[in-house]
Amino acid sequence: MAPSLLRLATRYNTIGARLLHNTGKVASSSALPNIQSAAIQKTLTTEPKPLVAKEKLLFGHTFSDHMLTVDWTRKGGWQKPQIIPYGPLSIDPSASVLHYAFECFEGLKAYRDAKGNIRLFRPDKNMTRMNSSVERLYLPQFDGAEAIECIKELVRTDQRWVPDGKGYSLYIRPTVIATENTLGVHAANSAKLFVITSPCGPYFPTGFKAVSLYCDETNVRAWPGGVGNRKLGANYAPSVAPQAAAEKKGYQQILWTIGEDHELMEVGTMNLFVYWKNEQGELELVTPPLDGTILPGVTRDSILELARSWGGIKVSERKVNMKQVAKASDEGRLLEVFGAGTACVVTPVNRIHFQGKDYVIPLDPAKPESQAGPLAARVYDTLTGIQYGEIESDWSVLVD
Amino acid sequence: MAPSLLRLATRYNTIGARLLHNTGKVASSSALPNIQSAAIQKTLTTEPKPLVAKEKLLFGHTFSDHMLTVDWTRKGGWQKPQIIPYGPLSIDPSASVLHYAFECFEGLKAYRDAKGNIRLFRPDKNMTRMNSSVERLYLPQFDGAEAIECIKELVRTDQRWVPDGKGYSLYIRPTVIATENTLGVHAANSAKLFVITSPCGPYFPTGFKAVSLYCDETNVRAWPGGVGNRKLGANYAPSVAPQAAAEKKGYQQILWTIGEDHELMEVGTMNLFVYWKNEQGELELVTPPLDGTILPGVTRDSILELARSWGGIKVSERKVNMKQVAKASDEGRLLEVFGAGTACVVTPVNRIHFQGKDYVIPLDPAKPESQAGPLAARVYDTLTGIQYGEIESDWSVLVD
Repeated sequence: MAPSLLRLATRYNTIGARLLHNTGKVASSSALPNIQSAAIQKTLTTEPKPLVAKEKLLFGHTFSDHMLTVDWTRKGGWQKPQIIPYGPLSIDPSASVLHYAFECFEGLKAYRDAKGNIRLFRPDKNMTRMNSSVERLYLPQFDGAEAIECIKELVRTDQRWVPDGKGYSLYIRPTVIATENTLGVHAANSAKLFVITSPCGPYFPTGFKAVSLYCDETNVRAWPGGVGNRKLGANYAPSVAPQAAAEKKGYQQILWTIGEDHELMEVGTMNLFVYWKNEQGELELVTPPLDGTILPGVTRDSILELARSWGGIKVSERKVNMKQVAKASDEGRLLEVFGAGTACVVTPVNRIHFQGKDYVIPLDPAKPESQAGPLAARVYDTLTGIQYGEIESDWSVLVD
Repeated sequence: MAPSLLRLATRYNTIGARLLHNTGKVASSSALPNIQSAAIQKTLTTEPKPLVAKEKLLFGHTFSDHMLTVDWTRKGGWQKPQIIPYGPLSIDPSASVLHYAFECFEGLKAYRDAKGNIRLFRPDKNMTRMNSSVERLYLPQFDGAEAIECIKELVRTDQRWVPDGKGYSLYIRPTVIATENTLGVHAANSAKLFVITSPCGPYFPTGFKAVSLYCDETNVRAWPGGVGNRKLGANYAPSVAPQAAAEKKGYQQILWTIGEDHELMEVGTMNLFVYWKNEQGELELVTPPLDGTILPGVTRDSILELARSWGGIKVSERKVNMKQVAKASDEGRLLEVFGAGTACVVTPVNRIHFQGKDYVIPLDPAKPESQAGPLAARVYDTLTGIQYGEIESDWSVLVD
């Protein structure tokens, strides 16, 4: 990105945060009912589904017996949460969610530890981000702590759907959609928060599998003054055709960059980390800063905090561009590149295509067969250790 | 926008078009069934709704008795079109449209002429653009001519919902949503095209009403490498909070610009026209070019063609920035600014706020009470004349 645009980006971000703080205030009213977990009404299914053998689970294909819904209206606030049998929603064909992408979502998981207890991982971070998303949709913020209690109750209700075994989990998908059933692009007067859950197996069933990236010079995921830092549906549909084009070229994921210098942004739907010996000769773990174009990932945040606590390497949130990565690769200074997200924890990268050339990314030089570098593996082991209750941490929250 | 970014924008656009042409080929298969109007199956309502008095119509609040739906699957292609009673869609809570904004839409109108005949306006342009949108969603293109025949049949079925009188019309909303009911961001394997219709009154019930614009320096509607030239839902939800902020400041619509020079993009959800005496002293009508960030509006295209046919003024599709507009205003060279879209045809602008200053835009100097400049008024009169069959034109298509 040209320096002038960089300055603009910073300004956009600062002003944007202020603007959105204001609009959030306009859209919500503290006098109206908020989400209250104590008010949950439950209607249990009379036809529980058979469990799917956990080895046969495909991500996002199997859903548990129940779902949580909380309706909202601008006049009446958040209504009583409902836990009801999983099933189709009845949506008016004029609903804003179907026309104008009034929608945002989150992804987190429930893990079963060795003692059989069920745990969440930093759910407060998901609720904070979801409130940031609904604010951007000009919908009201909600009480995140109460929403977590509702989610816990949903997980308890469907606890038989939380698979045993490390790597297995119950994926939890909170979503907010605007249900306003009039046409016209304007603030929605009704919405629905719903949570569905889906049991899933390990992202890497047979151990890590490093992926190749295609640096897309055509499409841009997000931009200064856009919504790249909110988990809006709007950020996702436009990524599918470019992703398919990258696959056709023989690469597994897109490396999103921006500007003439190809500043790194994200990889596929994950945050991106580069571990290298920088030009000053320091060992450094770098990820792009939260300048308004990058999704503030929970895994991203956790990795930064872990790496800083470990010491021994410099940990930076700063701009880094593809030319710098290519130069580091050419000079043998590049150590690891990996994506980070809830689904995979980390995904090691073994190759990046940039302007006609494939840059090979090292994995573990000490283990030629390895599919992950030592830092990515340490991050993975530590985070999954916390998620499954093997390592004591405040980040792991028991669903008691 | 800095010159370097301008070059990038041009490159993005060119490469983007090529890329998307390719992905369109991947996503569609000519061997599978396409939309066939002859195969329409009709199930008529047994409870027709009472008409709403046309003076009481609010845009997008009243819907006719029936809707058109056409389901698609990647394996089976487009299924038989159905005309069925208007009513809620049953959508799985995991459907891609609710999470990833896999959705696009169109807007056009059916007009009743003085002889009672019903007419559409350039529906082929809407179908071409919708195919451009679905392609960007990695969904298959469809036969636009057949889709128009289906829409005509829907309008015929609900013809009592097409109000009489100039300015009144039946708004037609074709929409495509992905119904794939698995999580995971990837190509959708099922989708639904549906069309709903809504009777509406004149956009300006008591004659033109000029609007004020707020030049937003924080939020950016679209970006080179983004999807601003496709009518995707993703372009709309992010506009609502900025629009509300502009209204709070006392302005009616947002003027979208981009880059350090504040290049004009669009106004609200309309294309933008500036009519001025340019720095060379020529009378010129300018609108931003279709560089990939601008929606290719049907009204925009029609105005360009009309103005070129009228002669006497230079008609340009080129970049123009806010500083140039402000300078023209200061120098008394600014003649008119107006938005253009299906809902309003044209919306005159009387004021633009830019960097702390309000620039007053002339309307009709010869008529102090006027709310529209002579060029905007001529455009409006001509286009509505064509739409209501008073002026002979190929653009007006009879629903026989």
